[in-house]
Amino acid sequence: MRQIHHQISVSTSGRGMREITQEIRQWVRSSGIRSGMLTVFMRHTSASLLIQENADPTVQADLERFFARLVPDGDPIFHHRQEGADDMAAHARTALTQIHLAIPVADGVPALGTWQGVFVYEHRYESQQRHVMLHLIGE
Amino acid sequence: MRQIHHQISVSTSGRGMREITQEIRQWVRSSGIRSGMLTVFMRHTSASLLIQENADPTVQADLERFFARLVPDGDPIFHHRQEGADDMAAHARTALTQIHLAIPVADGVPALGTWQGVFVYEHRYESQQRHVMLHLIGE
Amino acid sequence: MRQIHHQISVSTSGRGMREITQEIRQWVRSSGIRSGMLTVFMRHTSASLLIQENADPTVQADLERFFARLVPDGDPIFHHRQEGADDMAAHARTALTQIHLAIPVADGVPALGTWQGVFVYEHRYESQQRHVMLHLIGE
Repeated sequence: MRQIHHQISVSTSGRGMREITQEIRQWVRSSGIRSGMLTVFMRHTSASLLIQENADPTVQADLERFFARLVPDGDPIFHHRQEGADDMAAHARTALTQIHLAIPVADGVPALGTWQGVFVYEHRYESQQRHVMLHLIGE
Repeated sequence: MRQIHHQISVSTSGRGMREITQEIRQWVRSSGIRSGMLTVFMRHTSASLLIQENADPTVQADLERFFARLVPDGDPIFHHRQEGADDMAAHARTALTQIHLAIPVADGVPALGTWQGVFVYEHRYESQQRHVMLHLIGE
Repeated sequence: MRQIHHQISVSTSGRGMREITQEIRQWVRSSGIRSGMLTVFMRHTSASLLIQENADPTVQADLERFFARLVPDGDPIFHHRQEGADDMAAHARTALTQIHLAIPVADGVPALGTWQGVFVYEHRYESQQRHVMLHLIGE
């Protein structure tokens, strides 16, 4: 049994979802670990992670419309607004989604279902560099 | 230290929660691993996982009413509707709940609190076969 | 490779967030494991876990206002109300946030980002003793 850590840097182009399934799959393959548990961890408080449908891009647009309505930017109940109308909304969206994912690895690949992709979900308006940690334990 | 993977197939009877605590507990017992970390992973994008109160079934009905109001089926903001009014609502409900659970195992059992049960939460109207991966690492 | 379990008891002072980053950091340090994966698991159904901004306390107050509006206490759709208006609301808030966190450990510390803190989120009105399990695997 052994483990590996790795950090990837993901450039986002402002609010929205960016798929990272391929980067993750490649890193798992290069690790040489064929069977184990992969953890993906977002080191930020205004971007998050999601596993979602990756076949129809409409799903991403629909999800974004849904979260934009659920967590209104610049909501008057939000007092934390130093960095703008998207500041506190980004923290609330992060609370409702995921900071970490745990995905079993079997036969050398993350055991995602047919329609599952791994996404970084950027909640700020502007482009950011997001640091995502990967950890794989197995054999 | 060793690890085991296992996949279970859960038949759902349409929208709602189905408890799988017993299946999980039995599999952990049969693994022979007495201490470690259990991961439960849903391989779908329109069903999810929850750890919830399992003593009073009213909790499940209340949760379902809550999510039905929070994520309206056939919402006009949803354009992804090939498979019906529950299609995109199912993806949004999945984004708000869990795709994976991590539960410590101690003394040969998942260390759930007294009132905690593990549930598959089906978000589609029709019955489905859902594939859930279990991974246990420990000794 | 080795693993350790530990249970901490967290006193909450009624509804709201209580940071436990320092307790966790100290326990990781004392474990002697320098590199690995930490899991934090809440053994209750009416309190949850969050990783959030810990620099500006306004974030915690804003999040609480957000969840109080999203999940109204004593909502007429909630029939499970034996323990009061906060009973079922607490379960719904728990479903929307986290029961467990997985945080990579590197160089002897949880690899949290600069602004990330670990919080117990109490959803009941009254003070409670909450049992949180920690599990660390690594070397």
